[in-house]
Amino acid sequence: MKEFFKVTDLDDALEMRFGFNRMGQEEIPVQAAVNRVLAEDIVADVNLPDFPRAIMDGFAVRAASTFGASDGNPAYINVPQTVAMGEIPEFSIGPGEAAKISTGGMLPRGTDSVVMVEHTDTIDETTIEVFKSVAPGQNMVAIGEDIPKNQTVLSKGQRLRPQETGLLAAFGRQSVLVFKQPVIGILSTGDEIVSIDTVPPIGKIRDINSYTLAGLVTQAGGVPRQLGIVEDDYANLLDMCKQGMAQSDMLLVSGGSSVGMRDYTVDVLSEIPGTELMLHGISISPGKPTILARTNDKAFWGLPGHVVSAMVVFHAVVQPFIDHICGLEPDHLRRYACPATLTRSIASSLGRVDYVRIKLVEQDNTFQAVPILGKSGLINTMLRADGLVKIDKNTEGLDAGAQVNVLFFTS
Amino acid sequence: MKEFFKVTDLDDALEMRFGFNRMGQEEIPVQAAVNRVLAEDIVADVNLPDFPRAIMDGFAVRAASTFGASDGNPAYINVPQTVAMGEIPEFSIGPGEAAKISTGGMLPRGTDSVVMVEHTDTIDETTIEVFKSVAPGQNMVAIGEDIPKNQTVLSKGQRLRPQETGLLAAFGRQSVLVFKQPVIGILSTGDEIVSIDTVPPIGKIRDINSYTLAGLVTQAGGVPRQLGIVEDDYANLLDMCKQGMAQSDMLLVSGGSSVGMRDYTVDVLSEIPGTELMLHGISISPGKPTILARTNDKAFWGLPGHVVSAMVVFHAVVQPFIDHICGLEPDHLRRYACPATLTRSIASSLGRVDYVRIKLVEQDNTFQAVPILGKSGLINTMLRADGLVKIDKNTEGLDAGAQVNVLFFTS
Repeated sequence: MKEFFKVTDLDDALEMRFGFNRMGQEEIPVQAAVNRVLAEDIVADVNLPDFPRAIMDGFAVRAASTFGASDGNPAYINVPQTVAMGEIPEFSIGPGEAAKISTGGMLPRGTDSVVMVEHTDTIDETTIEVFKSVAPGQNMVAIGEDIPKNQTVLSKGQRLRPQETGLLAAFGRQSVLVFKQPVIGILSTGDEIVSIDTVPPIGKIRDINSYTLAGLVTQAGGVPRQLGIVEDDYANLLDMCKQGMAQSDMLLVSGGSSVGMRDYTVDVLSEIPGTELMLHGISISPGKPTILARTNDKAFWGLPGHVVSAMVVFHAVVQPFIDHICGLEPDHLRRYACPATLTRSIASSLGRVDYVRIKLVEQDNTFQAVPILGKSGLINTMLRADGLVKIDKNTEGLDAGAQVNVLFFTS
Repeated sequence: MKEFFKVTDLDDALEMRFGFNRMGQEEIPVQAAVNRVLAEDIVADVNLPDFPRAIMDGFAVRAASTFGASDGNPAYINVPQTVAMGEIPEFSIGPGEAAKISTGGMLPRGTDSVVMVEHTDTIDETTIEVFKSVAPGQNMVAIGEDIPKNQTVLSKGQRLRPQETGLLAAFGRQSVLVFKQPVIGILSTGDEIVSIDTVPPIGKIRDINSYTLAGLVTQAGGVPRQLGIVEDDYANLLDMCKQGMAQSDMLLVSGGSSVGMRDYTVDVLSEIPGTELMLHGISISPGKPTILARTNDKAFWGLPGHVVSAMVVFHAVVQPFIDHICGLEPDHLRRYACPATLTRSIASSLGRVDYVRIKLVEQDNTFQAVPILGKSGLINTMLRADGLVKIDKNTEGLDAGAQVNVLFFTS
């Protein structure tokens, strides 16, 4: 029987991701950029807007012309002109005057604000009553008020949301430099695993991990490549791992990583030239029997075979590595947790980080975190769960009523 | 000047979504199913697992053989057999006996539990010492313990996460019936809007809304189709709206929906045969000047031109409509909010639902909700925001220190 592995602390394991290079970069159309990671800084090359712009329908005025106006004491304003949309008004507006203007129109010279149409009444073709005063700058956007020229508005390493692609559009960027999406190979191992197109004979089960892992890779911004199932045959596993590493930017091999009788994974790794075993065992539960190796700057993961363990290791460890090679800067991570109240006590061990499956229940605008207990081989526990709670290595269990932060599964 | 529109209550507006039909259905490979909405119930056609399965490496025993075992008083167990992975053990195990077994192996007749290898010592080729007793059912999964046969495990109308695609794999589903993704047409209107491949002359700005809306549609599970920019020309707008409705399952037209001088949208709608105006104005802020019409069971949205308003209306109103036509059942919505503490007071009006842009700041494991104030024409406010807080129509503002739930932007 092999010696039991020496486990690596979770934080030390996570630190190892910075030793891997980031993906290359590519220029893509801005239409395809949402959810991608920016690989360049975006600096405003013009003021946004670059002309003073009405943001209400009404009348462009100098604010002083309306000071003191009220329902009982309206200001009478002369309206000699109308601003045509999308055009430069060639006239000026003086005191006591206004120009009719629509939302989006350019304020004429001499004006500094817009009176909303709702606060006016028409007297005749060129005269209005104003019932409410405006302040300078009101109901308009000044030059550069949204974004001033030369400001760095987006930075390398941030994931683009819809508003960021809108910003790229505002600056006329038809294409944008982003990090390439990593291709992540997925292999399942085990003599008891059969393909999903097979009716498993008694004693065997269908391959689940290839599918859950592929879904997780997709949600993490990678491109999954399912490489199939390898029986616990040394030569075959070696061959498939070599092929998988050649075809992918990262390889996930599930099953066969515990101190099993047929555990060939570490032996196989030692036979792939230039491969360095970085860790064998992480101090987390579930997910302890995890392997990380490195070949040609690519990460090779041996993940536990149990579906819950494999998913937890993915969330806790693999995903931060994917984030890193995808170019995401930790400052730009937006992965929020939901504060919630634990409904029952949970035991955990000192020196080990525990991940507990949680169902979130909303009650009176607050959230209750209901632990879902169960063996890590049971997929039903993951179906019922909304996310995970991490119990720190220095914490020996949590009491019912404790405040926890639930990390959501993406959905 | 047109009459000011009569606004519809937000809840009444949302209720209107149930009047639209859902998308059709299609069968897709399970590999492509993550994030899609299930259009069939999934019933377990076998027990999962359908044989008693070891979930630890060790020795299959009847638990009674280990009762009372401890470090000081180990149980001596005879190990005549080994279970081969993926095969049916053809032998039985009696009292005081065990079979060597690996994770995933099938328990032989006569056993009801597995002793972990870590709790044993090898004495000779066929004898072990056991230092810790096991309970019946421990370190194994019984037949149907994960999912019993005939249980409905997934139901129509739920979005598939990685764990749900794994479950489909477990039951041998190579393909699955899902709702089709809606094609959502996007048009921008306004004489002042130019295409992003153009340097806008003074007085015009580039089209931002087409890009933010396309990103939001993608994140909501739809397929965006950008249809371009229409100047505020009646005939042109009518023509493009007709084309857009013919090519899409839903149409978003941004700009031109306020009571502007060039507001043709409602007039255009009245000229498209079979079109019913469902609402003109919603009691939300920002986003009040929103239009919803219905043509041939398709929703036609007139969205405000201001980027913030258009995004807020999308999150607050349009997305629930997309969820509905995508087949999502409200029970299956997993869109979580983050409880947080408001850092400053916010004013709002009674009778109107207000959406406030929020930046989340984590502090000592809790979250602070920092309101981002600013005109609804400023995209920079959306770049700085992480989500929205909804202020109910019956609430007149919120005080600093109030507990709020922040609805995240997807990222």
